[in-house]
Amino acid sequence: LDRTRPSQGRAGSVEEAWAWIDALAAPLGPEQVPVAEAAGRILAEEVRAAFDLPPFDRAAVDGLAVRADETVGAGAYNPLPFRLAPAAGGELPAGAAVRLDAGEPLPRGADAVVPLDRVGAHDGAVCEVIEAVVAGNEVERAGAHGARGDVAVGGTGRRLGPGDIGVLASAGLVGVAVAGRPRVRCLVMEGAVDAGVPLPAGAVYDADGPMLGALIARDGGVAVARARVARDRAALCDALGGVVADMVLVVGGTGRGSNDHAAAALAEAGELAIHGVALRPGETAGLGRTAAGVPVVLLPGAPAACLWAYEMLAGRAIRRLGGHDPALPFARVEMTAARKIVSELGMTEVCAVRCVGGGGAEPLAPFAEAGLKAVTEGDGFVLVPEGSEGYQKGAAVTVYLYDERGRAQS
Amino acid sequence: LDRTRPSQGRAGSVEEAWAWIDALAAPLGPEQVPVAEAAGRILAEEVRAAFDLPPFDRAAVDGLAVRADETVGAGAYNPLPFRLAPAAGGELPAGAAVRLDAGEPLPRGADAVVPLDRVGAHDGAVCEVIEAVVAGNEVERAGAHGARGDVAVGGTGRRLGPGDIGVLASAGLVGVAVAGRPRVRCLVMEGAVDAGVPLPAGAVYDADGPMLGALIARDGGVAVARARVARDRAALCDALGGVVADMVLVVGGTGRGSNDHAAAALAEAGELAIHGVALRPGETAGLGRTAAGVPVVLLPGAPAACLWAYEMLAGRAIRRLGGHDPALPFARVEMTAARKIVSELGMTEVCAVRCVGGGGAEPLAPFAEAGLKAVTEGDGFVLVPEGSEGYQKGAAVTVYLYDERGRAQS
Repeated sequence: LDRTRPSQGRAGSVEEAWAWIDALAAPLGPEQVPVAEAAGRILAEEVRAAFDLPPFDRAAVDGLAVRADETVGAGAYNPLPFRLAPAAGGELPAGAAVRLDAGEPLPRGADAVVPLDRVGAHDGAVCEVIEAVVAGNEVERAGAHGARGDVAVGGTGRRLGPGDIGVLASAGLVGVAVAGRPRVRCLVMEGAVDAGVPLPAGAVYDADGPMLGALIARDGGVAVARARVARDRAALCDALGGVVADMVLVVGGTGRGSNDHAAAALAEAGELAIHGVALRPGETAGLGRTAAGVPVVLLPGAPAACLWAYEMLAGRAIRRLGGHDPALPFARVEMTAARKIVSELGMTEVCAVRCVGGGGAEPLAPFAEAGLKAVTEGDGFVLVPEGSEGYQKGAAVTVYLYDERGRAQS
Repeated sequence: LDRTRPSQGRAGSVEEAWAWIDALAAPLGPEQVPVAEAAGRILAEEVRAAFDLPPFDRAAVDGLAVRADETVGAGAYNPLPFRLAPAAGGELPAGAAVRLDAGEPLPRGADAVVPLDRVGAHDGAVCEVIEAVVAGNEVERAGAHGARGDVAVGGTGRRLGPGDIGVLASAGLVGVAVAGRPRVRCLVMEGAVDAGVPLPAGAVYDADGPMLGALIARDGGVAVARARVARDRAALCDALGGVVADMVLVVGGTGRGSNDHAAAALAEAGELAIHGVALRPGETAGLGRTAAGVPVVLLPGAPAACLWAYEMLAGRAIRRLGGHDPALPFARVEMTAARKIVSELGMTEVCAVRCVGGGGAEPLAPFAEAGLKAVTEGDGFVLVPEGSEGYQKGAAVTVYLYDERGRAQS
C-alpha cells in the first residue's frame, strides 16, 4: 500500500499560480503571416501606410468631374453646359467635364464631382449641370482613409479583425507580423481508451485529449501531436526531456497515489514549482518547467478537473505565450444567486450555474458529483474566491458565460 | 453618358432585407464531423449516451474500497483492521479492502472508498481504517455524469464548446452531426489589384477579397475560391449561372453607373429581389438568387460599404445557412453618447464610435469620409434606426463592440 507521498512542489493559491505563470510565460517572438490568414491573430508590430489611402483624389460617386468654380450659378432653371472630355490623362480643359465612375481618379484640374442625378440633358458630347457644387464635393481625398507614414493598424497586441484585414490589404501588404502561436504538446497518461474501439471492462473513453484540443485551439495555440505516456516515472521523465514545444500539458497522474508520477517526474526532469493548487475542481494541478525551460502544467485526468485546471491555469499560460489577453475568455455578467452557493473556505471554487428568469444564476450540482454534465447542462460559472464560503441567495454574483451571445441576451 | 438607370429590384429597408433573408436562408442539412474537430460547430441532432457515464461505480479518490458497514466504529483511537485483497476480479471478501486509484472500478460488494489519509498503519497485508465512512463515500456512481439513454449533449442549435467535446468523447463517439458550413463564392468585379504587385497609376489594392474571407470564416462559412469577373453584364451572368455554392457574394458594380452591371446581371441570371437598401454605408446593396435558387447578396465595392453591407445583410444569411444565431455577432453594451450622433432620417446608419471615459461612446468621422479608418480607430458602432435622426449628447445608446472582451472591460 502506497501512502500519500510528500510532493516536492509547494502548494499554492490560484493567485500564486497566476503570478508564477505571468512571470514565466512571455509572448513568443513574432512571425510573418499572409494578410488573408491574419484575422484573429495578434498584431506584433504596428503597421504604417507606405502611401496615401486612397492613393489619389477620386470620385466618391458616379458623376462628372468638374472645376467647382465653373458650376457657380448652375441650377434647374439655369443648366450650364460642359463639354465631355475623355477620362484618361492630361489636365481637365476649361469648360469641360469628365464622366467618372465611383472610385476613379479625378483628372488634374478637377476638384469636385457632380453626381449623375444633378446632370440634366446631354447629347454625348455636351451635358448640362443643374446644380452648383463646391470644391471637394463627392471627392474622396488622397490620404483621407490613412495618410502615408501614419499608423494604418496599431497597436501592438491588437487582435486583428476583418476591418483591419481590409486596411492591411488596402495598404498593399502581402504579410503582417503577428505574435507566434504557441505549440502545445499534450502528454497523456495511458489508461483511457480512444473512441472507435469497444470499451474494455473497467475502462473509460478519453475525454481529455479531444477536449484539450478544442481548448488549445480556442486560446490560439497549436496542439502538436498528442502522445500517450506509460504511467511510469521514467517514461514521463524521458518524454519531458525530449519535448520540442512552447508549452507542455501533462494529463493525469497528478495525485499522490501509487500510480501518480507526474509531479515526481517533473521534479526530476526539470522543476516542479507548484504542486497542489487551492482550486476546485483541479486541486492536484501543478506547474513547473522542463530542464530546457519549457513551461509545464500538470492537469488532473478526471475530465471536469482537467477542464478547470486548464481554464484556470494552462489556458492563461497559452494565451500569454500567444500575446492574447490572459484573462478568462468568457463574457462576464452581473447576476444574483438564485439559491445559496456554498464553497469551502481556502479553495477557489468553480461553481456551475444555469441562468434562470430575472437575472438569476442557479447553482448546479458540483463538478465532483456531476462531472462535465455540470458544463453541458449549465450556462456558465461563478468563481468563489479562496477567502469566501460562498454567496447567500439573492447576493450579487459575477457569472462567466460559456457562450457570450445566445445566453447573455436571453 | 449613361444616366442613372432604373433598377429592376425594389428598394427596401434593412428590416425588409432581413425578412427576405430569413425567408430564404434555411439551415443547410447536417454533416458528420469527427468529435475532435467539432468545437465551434452547431449541433444538428441531440446526442444520447449509449451507456452510463461513468460506465461503472468507481473510486473518486485514491483509497481503499470497503463495505461501509464494516467501518462502523472506526476512529483514530479505534483503528479497524482490513485484509488487503487483490484489485482485480471477483467479490470483495468480508473483512477485506482493495487499494484503488482514483477512477478505478469498485469491486463487487464494495460500496465506499476510504481516502488514503484516513488509513492508519499497514504492513502490506493488513491495513487500519481510522474513520467510519457511509455507503457512497468517495464513490462516483455509474451514470452520475449522464445515464444511458439520456441526452448527453443537446439541444439542436447548440454551439459546441470544449466541455461538450469532452462529453461526446466520454460517450465514445467518433463523429457528431453538425450543421453544414455554407460554401460562399465571391465574385469580385475586376479592377482592384491584388497585393504583391506594384500599384498601377489610378488603381487601388483589393481590400474586399481578404476582408470578406475573414468575415465568412468568422460566420462559420467556407470561402470557396474567389473569382474575378469582368465588369460586363454577360460575364457576370455567366458566372452566376455556373455557380456551385450555397451562397454568392457579388462584390462591386452595384451602383447605377455606366460600369455597374451587378443588379442587371442578377435580374437576368435569376431574380433581383431588392436593390437599394436604406442602409448607410451600403445603400447600393442588393439581394436575390440565381436561377438555381442560390441566394446572392450584391455588395458595394467601396471597402467600408462592402463591410457594412456584409455585416448587415450577407453575414446574417451565412449565419442562418450554417445554423448559427443570425443576430449581429458582437457584444452589446449600453453607453451614453459623448457627442451628438447625427443620421439621415429614412436610413439605418452605422455610426463608428470610440469608447471614452465614464461609459461614453464618442462618434468618429463617418465611414463615407474616413473609410475603414473609422473601424480601425474605433471600438464599435451604434446603429441609428431608419426612423431616427440620431442621438443627443448624453442619450443612452447601444454600442456593438468589435472585440467583446478587451474593450468591454476597459
